[in-house]
Amino acid sequence: MAHVSIIGTGNMGSALAGLVTKGGHTVESFNSSDADKPVTGEVVVLAVPYPAVAEVLAQRGGQLAGKVVVDITNPLNFETFDDLVVPADSSAAAGIAAALPTAKVVKAFNINFAATLSSADIGGQTTTVLIAGDDADAKALLADIVTAGGLRAIDAGALKRARELESLALLQIGLAAGEKVSWTGGFAVVP
Amino acid sequence: MAHVSIIGTGNMGSALAGLVTKGGHTVESFNSSDADKPVTGEVVVLAVPYPAVAEVLAQRGGQLAGKVVVDITNPLNFETFDDLVVPADSSAAAGIAAALPTAKVVKAFNINFAATLSSADIGGQTTTVLIAGDDADAKALLADIVTAGGLRAIDAGALKRARELESLALLQIGLAAGEKVSWTGGFAVVP
Repeated sequence: MAHVSIIGTGNMGSALAGLVTKGGHTVESFNSSDADKPVTGEVVVLAVPYPAVAEVLAQRGGQLAGKVVVDITNPLNFETFDDLVVPADSSAAAGIAAALPTAKVVKAFNINFAATLSSADIGGQTTTVLIAGDDADAKALLADIVTAGGLRAIDAGALKRARELESLALLQIGLAAGEKVSWTGGFAVVP
Repeated sequence: MAHVSIIGTGNMGSALAGLVTKGGHTVESFNSSDADKPVTGEVVVLAVPYPAVAEVLAQRGGQLAGKVVVDITNPLNFETFDDLVVPADSSAAAGIAAALPTAKVVKAFNINFAATLSSADIGGQTTTVLIAGDDADAKALLADIVTAGGLRAIDAGALKRARELESLALLQIGLAAGEKVSWTGGFAVVP
């Protein structure tokens, strides 16, 4: 059984807490008033908006040493929905990995709308979580948590693939914000 | 009724010819031995592998003036499936648009595997074509052709979005090449 710390109690943090507990794992959740409470999970999910990541890393960088750190963020320009705010050849995940050199950073959940995590369904397909990262054990642990919670997990490759996962999310969020797809839809992964 | 010139007779060119004719539009197809035959369609589809685009533009650049040019290419490094070969902040489509300043370049079909164009189905969803471009009339014309052929079309925004569409394709082709999804699956757009 894994113990998972989820930083952030918004739509995504709540949906992820539900997913983890559904699979029989334990969760501790942290909101913005819990800055002084240390994380104790071996897996820590950064379920905060991208602009809040820097503060979380400043507060908790030391606590994250050696842990599996799950980056679910999307570094969008949320004023325009037209750009990412990270370098075009990089990703939010790469930046987080650089800031946490001993953590095992994985990118996951950033292309999953919260509703599809809770329902486990997107257009008749089981919601699939794409997991990118450079540590195979970290990816396998997260995949176990995902599948125990009733979703599918696919290893999407190295952490380098976070660039494409974040690009996909820019496209998907733009389509949803523009009412071309709903927030219960988007891109489904078909086997 | 639109007349559509399709340059390329591979899997994608063949599937697109079927789609266009299914919708009651007319098609002329060109293979690599047709270099001297001019295109006559008001819509021209570049259904060749990305490395062949430069030669097509060199041969036919003048013929494409003023036309709707549909770029379906994916500028992958096909040796590694690990990178795109265009600048990280740009796209194949942007390069083609720069080379054809009077053409109306749209990006489309690059995230649709050929089988899903022919079957009109991906995981129980109607196959959806995302169309990005800077000319609204060009996008509307292509959307009409797509919907007449039995698929869904969604305006994905400006040609700038080709960057994300090509990133998505890198991810999707990598998943298929790695047997994580099949060539009849991939990313379905769920409304």
